[in-house]
Amino acid sequence: MTTYPYPQLNPPPFVWQKETGVREPKVHEWIRSLSPGADHVEWQNVDVTLLGVPLSRSSISASAASETPHAMRQAWKGFVPYNLDYDVDLTPLNVVDLGDVKQHVTDIAWSHKAITDAMYAMRTHHPNTFPLALGGDHSITAMLVKGWKKAHPDERIGILQLDTHFDLRSLKDNGPSNGTPIRNLIESGTIKGEDVWNIGLHGFFNAKSLKEYADRAGIRYVTMRRARQRGLDAVIQEALLDLKRRVDTVYVTVDMDVLDIAYGPGAPATTPGGMQTDELFTAVTAAGRDPHVKAMDIVCLDPHKDVAQATVKAGVHTMLSFLTGFYLRQHD
Amino acid sequence: MTTYPYPQLNPPPFVWQKETGVREPKVHEWIRSLSPGADHVEWQNVDVTLLGVPLSRSSISASAASETPHAMRQAWKGFVPYNLDYDVDLTPLNVVDLGDVKQHVTDIAWSHKAITDAMYAMRTHHPNTFPLALGGDHSITAMLVKGWKKAHPDERIGILQLDTHFDLRSLKDNGPSNGTPIRNLIESGTIKGEDVWNIGLHGFFNAKSLKEYADRAGIRYVTMRRARQRGLDAVIQEALLDLKRRVDTVYVTVDMDVLDIAYGPGAPATTPGGMQTDELFTAVTAAGRDPHVKAMDIVCLDPHKDVAQATVKAGVHTMLSFLTGFYLRQHD
Amino acid sequence: MTTYPYPQLNPPPFVWQKETGVREPKVHEWIRSLSPGADHVEWQNVDVTLLGVPLSRSSISASAASETPHAMRQAWKGFVPYNLDYDVDLTPLNVVDLGDVKQHVTDIAWSHKAITDAMYAMRTHHPNTFPLALGGDHSITAMLVKGWKKAHPDERIGILQLDTHFDLRSLKDNGPSNGTPIRNLIESGTIKGEDVWNIGLHGFFNAKSLKEYADRAGIRYVTMRRARQRGLDAVIQEALLDLKRRVDTVYVTVDMDVLDIAYGPGAPATTPGGMQTDELFTAVTAAGRDPHVKAMDIVCLDPHKDVAQATVKAGVHTMLSFLTGFYLRQHD
Amino acid sequence: MTTYPYPQLNPPPFVWQKETGVREPKVHEWIRSLSPGADHVEWQNVDVTLLGVPLSRSSISASAASETPHAMRQAWKGFVPYNLDYDVDLTPLNVVDLGDVKQHVTDIAWSHKAITDAMYAMRTHHPNTFPLALGGDHSITAMLVKGWKKAHPDERIGILQLDTHFDLRSLKDNGPSNGTPIRNLIESGTIKGEDVWNIGLHGFFNAKSLKEYADRAGIRYVTMRRARQRGLDAVIQEALLDLKRRVDTVYVTVDMDVLDIAYGPGAPATTPGGMQTDELFTAVTAAGRDPHVKAMDIVCLDPHKDVAQATVKAGVHTMLSFLTGFYLRQHD
Amino acid sequence: MTTYPYPQLNPPPFVWQKETGVREPKVHEWIRSLSPGADHVEWQNVDVTLLGVPLSRSSISASAASETPHAMRQAWKGFVPYNLDYDVDLTPLNVVDLGDVKQHVTDIAWSHKAITDAMYAMRTHHPNTFPLALGGDHSITAMLVKGWKKAHPDERIGILQLDTHFDLRSLKDNGPSNGTPIRNLIESGTIKGEDVWNIGLHGFFNAKSLKEYADRAGIRYVTMRRARQRGLDAVIQEALLDLKRRVDTVYVTVDMDVLDIAYGPGAPATTPGGMQTDELFTAVTAAGRDPHVKAMDIVCLDPHKDVAQATVKAGVHTMLSFLTGFYLRQHD
Amino acid sequence: MTTYPYPQLNPPPFVWQKETGVREPKVHEWIRSLSPGADHVEWQNVDVTLLGVPLSRSSISASAASETPHAMRQAWKGFVPYNLDYDVDLTPLNVVDLGDVKQHVTDIAWSHKAITDAMYAMRTHHPNTFPLALGGDHSITAMLVKGWKKAHPDERIGILQLDTHFDLRSLKDNGPSNGTPIRNLIESGTIKGEDVWNIGLHGFFNAKSLKEYADRAGIRYVTMRRARQRGLDAVIQEALLDLKRRVDTVYVTVDMDVLDIAYGPGAPATTPGGMQTDELFTAVTAAGRDPHVKAMDIVCLDPHKDVAQATVKAGVHTMLSFLTGFYLRQHD
Repeated sequence: MTTYPYPQLNPPPFVWQKETGVREPKVHEWIRSLSPGADHVEWQNVDVTLLGVPLSRSSISASAASETPHAMRQAWKGFVPYNLDYDVDLTPLNVVDLGDVKQHVTDIAWSHKAITDAMYAMRTHHPNTFPLALGGDHSITAMLVKGWKKAHPDERIGILQLDTHFDLRSLKDNGPSNGTPIRNLIESGTIKGEDVWNIGLHGFFNAKSLKEYADRAGIRYVTMRRARQRGLDAVIQEALLDLKRRVDTVYVTVDMDVLDIAYGPGAPATTPGGMQTDELFTAVTAAGRDPHVKAMDIVCLDPHKDVAQATVKAGVHTMLSFLTGFYLRQHD
Repeated sequence: MTTYPYPQLNPPPFVWQKETGVREPKVHEWIRSLSPGADHVEWQNVDVTLLGVPLSRSSISASAASETPHAMRQAWKGFVPYNLDYDVDLTPLNVVDLGDVKQHVTDIAWSHKAITDAMYAMRTHHPNTFPLALGGDHSITAMLVKGWKKAHPDERIGILQLDTHFDLRSLKDNGPSNGTPIRNLIESGTIKGEDVWNIGLHGFFNAKSLKEYADRAGIRYVTMRRARQRGLDAVIQEALLDLKRRVDTVYVTVDMDVLDIAYGPGAPATTPGGMQTDELFTAVTAAGRDPHVKAMDIVCLDPHKDVAQATVKAGVHTMLSFLTGFYLRQHD
Repeated sequence: MTTYPYPQLNPPPFVWQKETGVREPKVHEWIRSLSPGADHVEWQNVDVTLLGVPLSRSSISASAASETPHAMRQAWKGFVPYNLDYDVDLTPLNVVDLGDVKQHVTDIAWSHKAITDAMYAMRTHHPNTFPLALGGDHSITAMLVKGWKKAHPDERIGILQLDTHFDLRSLKDNGPSNGTPIRNLIESGTIKGEDVWNIGLHGFFNAKSLKEYADRAGIRYVTMRRARQRGLDAVIQEALLDLKRRVDTVYVTVDMDVLDIAYGPGAPATTPGGMQTDELFTAVTAAGRDPHVKAMDIVCLDPHKDVAQATVKAGVHTMLSFLTGFYLRQHD
Repeated sequence: MTTYPYPQLNPPPFVWQKETGVREPKVHEWIRSLSPGADHVEWQNVDVTLLGVPLSRSSISASAASETPHAMRQAWKGFVPYNLDYDVDLTPLNVVDLGDVKQHVTDIAWSHKAITDAMYAMRTHHPNTFPLALGGDHSITAMLVKGWKKAHPDERIGILQLDTHFDLRSLKDNGPSNGTPIRNLIESGTIKGEDVWNIGLHGFFNAKSLKEYADRAGIRYVTMRRARQRGLDAVIQEALLDLKRRVDTVYVTVDMDVLDIAYGPGAPATTPGGMQTDELFTAVTAAGRDPHVKAMDIVCLDPHKDVAQATVKAGVHTMLSFLTGFYLRQHD
Repeated sequence: MTTYPYPQLNPPPFVWQKETGVREPKVHEWIRSLSPGADHVEWQNVDVTLLGVPLSRSSISASAASETPHAMRQAWKGFVPYNLDYDVDLTPLNVVDLGDVKQHVTDIAWSHKAITDAMYAMRTHHPNTFPLALGGDHSITAMLVKGWKKAHPDERIGILQLDTHFDLRSLKDNGPSNGTPIRNLIESGTIKGEDVWNIGLHGFFNAKSLKEYADRAGIRYVTMRRARQRGLDAVIQEALLDLKRRVDTVYVTVDMDVLDIAYGPGAPATTPGGMQTDELFTAVTAAGRDPHVKAMDIVCLDPHKDVAQATVKAGVHTMLSFLTGFYLRQHD
Repeated sequence: MTTYPYPQLNPPPFVWQKETGVREPKVHEWIRSLSPGADHVEWQNVDVTLLGVPLSRSSISASAASETPHAMRQAWKGFVPYNLDYDVDLTPLNVVDLGDVKQHVTDIAWSHKAITDAMYAMRTHHPNTFPLALGGDHSITAMLVKGWKKAHPDERIGILQLDTHFDLRSLKDNGPSNGTPIRNLIESGTIKGEDVWNIGLHGFFNAKSLKEYADRAGIRYVTMRRARQRGLDAVIQEALLDLKRRVDTVYVTVDMDVLDIAYGPGAPATTPGGMQTDELFTAVTAAGRDPHVKAMDIVCLDPHKDVAQATVKAGVHTMLSFLTGFYLRQHD
């Protein structure tokens, strides 16, 4: 055992992150990391598992969304797990970071399968934890939902989507790209179109045929303009009220390009006329409170395109706002 | 005739843009380009003509607004001509891009005259099309309106201006610069002061004497603060209701510096406290619906100063939002 | 005496700034600069003194807030002293820029003392002027208020703080850093906790123990979410109504990180979910109107991190909006 | 046939690019574009065919190298086809731009095969033209050389590589990524290790085992330090002299990360200590002169990371410098 | 007379700049500014007059070169007037900054005439000072040389040009733009082609016809490649040796785009393969030493495009290096 | 003990960094981190200890040099410990990262003392290791050398400085700031002026009086211009040859602003006309080879100002180049 002879030194930074006994942790000191040698994880007590999904090769346009799990882990060192708006202390929640799903450099199908397998493994080994995935691009949503379905074949799954786009492009065009996840899920029989609510669509970014496809499939959607008029809180509650009449599980997917380009400059397909961050935080807090919501992902954020770190910070805030709702679900 | 022996190649990009038979075009595939060899333009069927006006030498401060027509043509490749907010498909509109007005490198008066001539020629040859100009700096508005007046000397013309500034500086200071267009039009007798409505003024960016000039000239204005309280929709309708009691033609001019600097970082004179993009889109959609509105320009956007392409995208969205109103004017 | 033989030359720029007889000045032509040789300052007529406090060595994270006084002086050359929103001409206000407090490169305690001394000297020599300090980081607020207290030991002082943070960290951790000014003032007995109102707190950026400290100390606070629902105007008035029942002097401190990161990218600790600039301008205009408000500072703005100059311009607009209220205080 | 009624208008920009009869073209007016309807390409007269290969999904780190063919086509509008350094007019060279190889969004193997097929088709249909490919990442080199080998199975192929890296990673790690092309070619039997010359390696960016692999495989290499001491011209000539004793065809591949990071900030893996641009231009001009050099590619340039367009312009200059050598090969 | 009661304050920054008695000034404290009320300028003792020429409306591409005089005046606050390389103290030189030539916002011909008039006035009033102009774009060189010629009609004037371009475009194309100054001077009979030396040309940035024009006109030029091989020092001396056999006055013009894009990212037309800054400093120091060199300008630097202030700092360093030579001319 | 049930997951990134048994590590896998619980550090086998010194509050101008130790630790994940230029494998060197010296937020004297204490502790506990400090600004050099002197009072210490500046400002001006370290050491009697060699000075960035101070103190210096003519290798060897005739220990200090601004845009005081990176790497490799060199620091690098990460990467490369020399010292 080495004694540490330098009282005037800080130990190297990453050691400090593991310090226990800190009364008031930063987010990275509260979220625990799973590692091969980590023992004594009592899985029955874990509330939420975080899963990085660093895949952006399946994006239609060039994207570094693969860098998001790392960028968010860095950025949340600047957040504390206490939400002043709601006076909620998140630290009683037991959150474990599982690390990243392995990805292949040149075999996207392999990567997609690994994502499905990861969700399946999580549901099989630790069915009582809430999985929260950090993408990656939007193609991963189809893979994650399929993994859930494989683990729970009898469940009916609904989707609550915050997005500027329908994500209903045909798989015939480019395979399972980031423009296709909802169509992929419908056409593979994983979900029904009527079990999808999309909130935040706007502007000139969805071809008319996709809107017609949505209508034929029975997809429900609320444009940004209408959602703002009614309040995001109310719209989310209406969507969940409708969904839980039919489905067993609601999966929430947040495409960060739902944000206005002034608020989310780092989401590759973000545009003017979108959601403001406080609206997004309200929406996901509302979603987090509902016990039917059983999984979530945050996708399509490219840290390389970010300005002043605004979008990465918004991504972390989205995750923590959702967890605030999750805490309230358990304690209200 | 060469056969094309490479099934695995895309033809060069700009050829692909001309593909016909695409069921669902992007904006650049819907808007047609006029070229010397282009035949079969049936002018009687053209609804809207776009005109690039790449002049920024007449700006008071250094500006690359001359690059905007090119930047917007590049950026609208990322938009579709279907407006989900209003469920409006723009493709029935017949829109032709005439290209750019020739500009002289060292003779601004020559350039200004060419702009006036271009509007005159458009009104003379094809009086049934709606001209929509993409600046360039704000000095071009005076030249375009003068071209209209030359073609229609008996018409009374009103101006609906969205701007942070009055643009009432004296021509004696710097000649017909971007600070002068409204005063230029009034003092040249092209329009009357009482036929100008300016919406969006705010803050500490107009000298008191300009406000006094506006008052003396009978110009109507609504500050950003008041416009937001009443809703942009209502304010635009009030302005148009007032104007069309007196004028034959309403010319709409959008200075992109009306936007808040968070939404329009690429407009050279943009400031905090301005309009949000969704407010701007609401305003121009409302303006587009009114049949008295017969011409429009979008000016003072400098792509070299833009951040995350936010302002250029906002410029394109402004144009398409206006055209949505224009479509509704014909079909409601 | 040299005659000036070049009719076609502008004299060097800084001379032009001193031109008198300009009917409509820009802000830098209206605000007067105090210099060693400047005579005829009739102090009894001075309304407001500006004081640069270029200290950011006391910031917890790396910051160039020391550059803000210079950056704001440069930026206000683009503003006029006429507020169109309120039709208020600021030029009757007699505003003098005293320059910057001397700072030491390596002795922060020396610098802090100089700041306290500067406020004390101002209050002693010219007690009828309103001091408005341009930081610098938030540590300076404690020093400025202590200087006030030293000059007016019998006054009870209240604080109106616009901030994302409580600034209640313990001085034991890092000394009098930018995270500590309010606690510093309370624990030194300069103010009472119940005389602090903090408006704009939000999100995951204050440890729970700081909130508990605030509660024990009797600090009043309104989160951003609630302030927006009720309107900034109303919240400020409520705070002032409460404070002036007890205190003689209200000191206003604006930490620019109260802004949302989309509006204030250049404030080091700015985050998503914060205040919009028009809300901030409304708030400080309201504060400026109240005669109990007797001093102000604007802090924690790092021009090196700014994007499109948005935050520096917002800082200037904040100062001018406050002065609009100050003018109305005298003339309503 | 429409007459063009606007003498004061420029026709839309892209039409002007096709103007014939311009005595002194810019590069984009000299290089011809192949399009489906383009007739009268007399293939026997074509000297060089350009081929865009917009693939960067196979990069180990996030990259937008896929955007390079488009970015270079835009940038060469600012170059003329006359090299003042050598007094060489390139316009007698007949250069045709074939457009881009089709790429799949999610199936990299499909994309790789299409690249091989494209080279095979070019060699089969028009064996007398010189193919010059614009990547994309470095994985494409293996595919292009395999396409050549398929068309010319009896030829022995050598590689002249300008690169900071060996590109000898094992395919077992990540499949055929951008770290593997040379190893891929050796282990697939397409080339022999002794027929590879790598020039420009330096610093701490190649694992020792890769250097040992290179030594065992017989690869020849010259570090940047030594190449600079001897002059790039001399080193290239030595390499070619050695190669052409054994091989029929030399394939030149330029990884733009061979440049020093001050000269090539937009190459994802660029580092300090690399090549200067004038050294690179000297090297490729020398390579272009040798008739054994029969194909070339330029890879690993990410326009999204570029600063001041320096790297994209360097890419275009590299292509034109090579073509200067190619012209001299025919005319000296 | 106001006493200055604040010992702990710095006076406002611009006052400090005028402090006399500073033993070791910064550049801005050494260079004196001419102002309307400045008396006691003993013109017979002035060595060098600086003249800002803020014109960039005459540039072919969008440019903010008009901002350069201001940017350089700001930047030289970070330089001292002592050249360590040559152990030369510049302070004995008497340098006066005349300010900027007035420019018109919309009348370029007016601005050009004012530039010619300014040079004429300088030569008429104070013929013994050395004029050094800070552009502005390259069109100003023609105007300045014409002003010299007007004042000294019998002198034969030679040009020493450091440039990537010939600047020999026809005035028929765009009028007297930044691509034309040398041709303008030749065709107006102001200079003879054989009296022009251009050093630093390179690459693919001059049309062949311009090179042919140069040859017919007898212009001498040395490409960058050859200049580097022989050393900039030697090349400049050879040029001056040749010129002074024929001409009375050598005018030096430095187009900052002669720099490599890595060294001069802020010059609009800068490219790879250009001059390094130390080569440029060597060249202008050599030019400054020769008594036949009687005027100079530095042009085509756009501070808005600069990266890390590298180009603006290089511009200041160029001016000071030239003045080092000028000092040695007087004292060696 | 938890089994790790997710074969398809990567464990969290920081765990992977500690993997042992990796045959070919990246730099961060080779350099070991000292942590409180780390046992079995056999100090007698440690060759080099790295020490982060995150202090930039003592800089004259605003600087985030405090972020450099963290930025370099992140950046060296992209380097391997094998130097291809010299065929040197660094992994036999036993390098331990001690972490960062504790710094106080508001008490610079405390921080300075902690730095001295840290060096003293290192020399006392483990006198056989080579300390290599990562700044921080240049003020730390004085503190580190004083710590060495305190541990070895009888040694005569020489300084080999690579810098654009003398760093000889008076401590009376600003206390022990980053402009003073060499003067501080001389005037405190820690070193003698004649034992300082400064290489790389150039341009207009040192006041004449500082040069005169240097001359009086006997400091030796070689300007950049002369050093380049003779080769950095030769200059370093001459300096060391001279120094080791007199001193026991040579301390090497590299101020990153010695780099030309094109190569080191992220060093706050960097300028045109400086050192190129390959020259710097040559210089420090030469210094590393000499056994009299016993300590080193790298200072004045501000990651917040960096462009394309060029300067941070250059900092890491400087450290690794020095260690290459250090390895050769032991093995040649």
